[in-house]
Amino acid sequence: MIDFTLQLPTKIIFGKDAIAKLGGEASRCGKRALLVYGQGSIKRNGVYDEVITSLADSGITIDEHAGVRENPSLAHAEEGVRKAVRQKAEMIIAVGGGSVIDEGKGIAIGCVNQEPLWDFYTRKAEIKDALPILAVQTMPATSSETNFISVLTNEKTRQKFSARSEKLFPRAAFLDPQKTLSIAADQTACACTDIMAHLMEGYLTSTDTYAPVQDGIAEGIIKAVMGSMERLIGDPGDYNARSAVMWAGALAWSGLCSAGLGGASVPNHMLEHPLSALYDIRHGAGLSVIFPAWLSHGKDRHVRRIELFGKNVLGLPSGSGPEEITAALKSWYRKIGMPVTMKEAGIEEPDIPAM
Amino acid sequence: MIDFTLQLPTKIIFGKDAIAKLGGEASRCGKRALLVYGQGSIKRNGVYDEVITSLADSGITIDEHAGVRENPSLAHAEEGVRKAVRQKAEMIIAVGGGSVIDEGKGIAIGCVNQEPLWDFYTRKAEIKDALPILAVQTMPATSSETNFISVLTNEKTRQKFSARSEKLFPRAAFLDPQKTLSIAADQTACACTDIMAHLMEGYLTSTDTYAPVQDGIAEGIIKAVMGSMERLIGDPGDYNARSAVMWAGALAWSGLCSAGLGGASVPNHMLEHPLSALYDIRHGAGLSVIFPAWLSHGKDRHVRRIELFGKNVLGLPSGSGPEEITAALKSWYRKIGMPVTMKEAGIEEPDIPAM
Repeated sequence: MIDFTLQLPTKIIFGKDAIAKLGGEASRCGKRALLVYGQGSIKRNGVYDEVITSLADSGITIDEHAGVRENPSLAHAEEGVRKAVRQKAEMIIAVGGGSVIDEGKGIAIGCVNQEPLWDFYTRKAEIKDALPILAVQTMPATSSETNFISVLTNEKTRQKFSARSEKLFPRAAFLDPQKTLSIAADQTACACTDIMAHLMEGYLTSTDTYAPVQDGIAEGIIKAVMGSMERLIGDPGDYNARSAVMWAGALAWSGLCSAGLGGASVPNHMLEHPLSALYDIRHGAGLSVIFPAWLSHGKDRHVRRIELFGKNVLGLPSGSGPEEITAALKSWYRKIGMPVTMKEAGIEEPDIPAM
Repeated sequence: MIDFTLQLPTKIIFGKDAIAKLGGEASRCGKRALLVYGQGSIKRNGVYDEVITSLADSGITIDEHAGVRENPSLAHAEEGVRKAVRQKAEMIIAVGGGSVIDEGKGIAIGCVNQEPLWDFYTRKAEIKDALPILAVQTMPATSSETNFISVLTNEKTRQKFSARSEKLFPRAAFLDPQKTLSIAADQTACACTDIMAHLMEGYLTSTDTYAPVQDGIAEGIIKAVMGSMERLIGDPGDYNARSAVMWAGALAWSGLCSAGLGGASVPNHMLEHPLSALYDIRHGAGLSVIFPAWLSHGKDRHVRRIELFGKNVLGLPSGSGPEEITAALKSWYRKIGMPVTMKEAGIEEPDIPAM
């Protein structure tokens, strides 16, 4: 195990009346909030109304910044900064999936630092502070509600980069699994693929020969996501399966699961970011295309880890080779409706040099 | 899954130079600390010197409160409160195992609240505040370094009770696995038994029929502790196995592993507390006696969960009955040198009515 420092300061409020507690937590941060959300799905599933009611009950006044897209753009975040500054917002309340929360974090950075926002993503500038962030997660996948990472896409330079700072941990995260019951099957499959990928990256790339706590947690959560996804194909309204996906989504990339894991890296995310920056495909779809290809490519370097994955996660017999394991993973992705080739992801002629 | 709120605010500093960072973290809390420790093992294993050096380098002045015992006593904690008040301590630094950290938390409560200290353990009084606590863990087992619980024993009333408050989360926890390499085999076995018990309580008593994230995490960490304990029988100096036990010890009772688990309770701890309060045996030894007995007793109520435990944790064939599972657990406890009967624990004629 390698040395590490870990802090998970976000207060996680999980369950059927989580959103009703938003106003109370928000009033610890001030009286004026910029409410950041996406394409309006929160108005259809009742989340918006619950948010507005809870904030009004606590006397929080809001301005709104809607229209966040799936790979959130720098330009849209900069527009959010201007709104928040104009409004003298004391906090950012992000309501949506990981993209919305990521953009909310970007706005929180931009409000209290003078440098151009993109400089924090290219690591030219250091994040000294940020407005408090509250996160209502409605599309579990990225752990953005519990971690200190923000990913934005600069559409001018066609780059997708991340900013990281302990100032970006949300003060509180609100997770109500009921609000995920209506998520469409393809989006659920993308989310599960992403959650699994967050755990598989560290698990498969680690150079540790004995890290049973980290391995056990990763294996347990990956299997939980796979089992829950299979249940949701049969019954999208299964509350316990939705809860499991939501909790797995909050933990997988929080920092907890990979803490202490030696030599872990995130090659598939590094490969996927340029893919979704160039083609604007779903992050999950990029991952289900890339992961099996990476497994084949990296099989010599990571052979022992890939074998463990086959045995302990996919339930393949001991001694299964990397080809069988890759095939089994592909087959599972197909079962849940995910693409496993560029073509299936809608990319006819991938521009490899640009990526 | 049931609704929950979870926050794990303690900054966990894990690894080979963790203790060197104590002074820096302490100086965020003030300049004067009460240093709480046990029977002096920290002077033999080098921890005391490292602590003193790090604090001196950061200009922290200290008073000392040594002599904490394995089931820490109310009277000794009250003595610590008097010292800390006299010294005008701005923080409590607890260096040792769970007992030391638990007593340190008790002192932190007593310094800033007016009510008699025991009132916070009988729940007659509410903890409104506490001095900041820093915890250097040298004997991983109880998660006291990451949780908000303090257990003290009132020797006059022969009661062992807990106090709980979010004010009791240590500001930072310092975990250096190197400092655990010299822990004796019997103490290591006690610690592993305790860590496993913390996870087994929730796992076995939950009424959930589908909680795969919690189950997967518990199964993974229990198996990690069992495997690491077996490695340590062969080689007590195995750093990776010591690291795994230390990390498992920090997580098992932190609140994270049981979050959302429906209907979970802690019957074995409830039974063990009066046992170790009356006989002053090691907490781990009480647990290895009680757990198999409880399994036999509770087999009708928790049959499905016990079966899962047998299959997924102990690796028994599907369909193994509670008797076989209890026998396998007993046999494993014996393998690592733990008692499984009152007599083996040194209690010839247990006073059942008093317990």
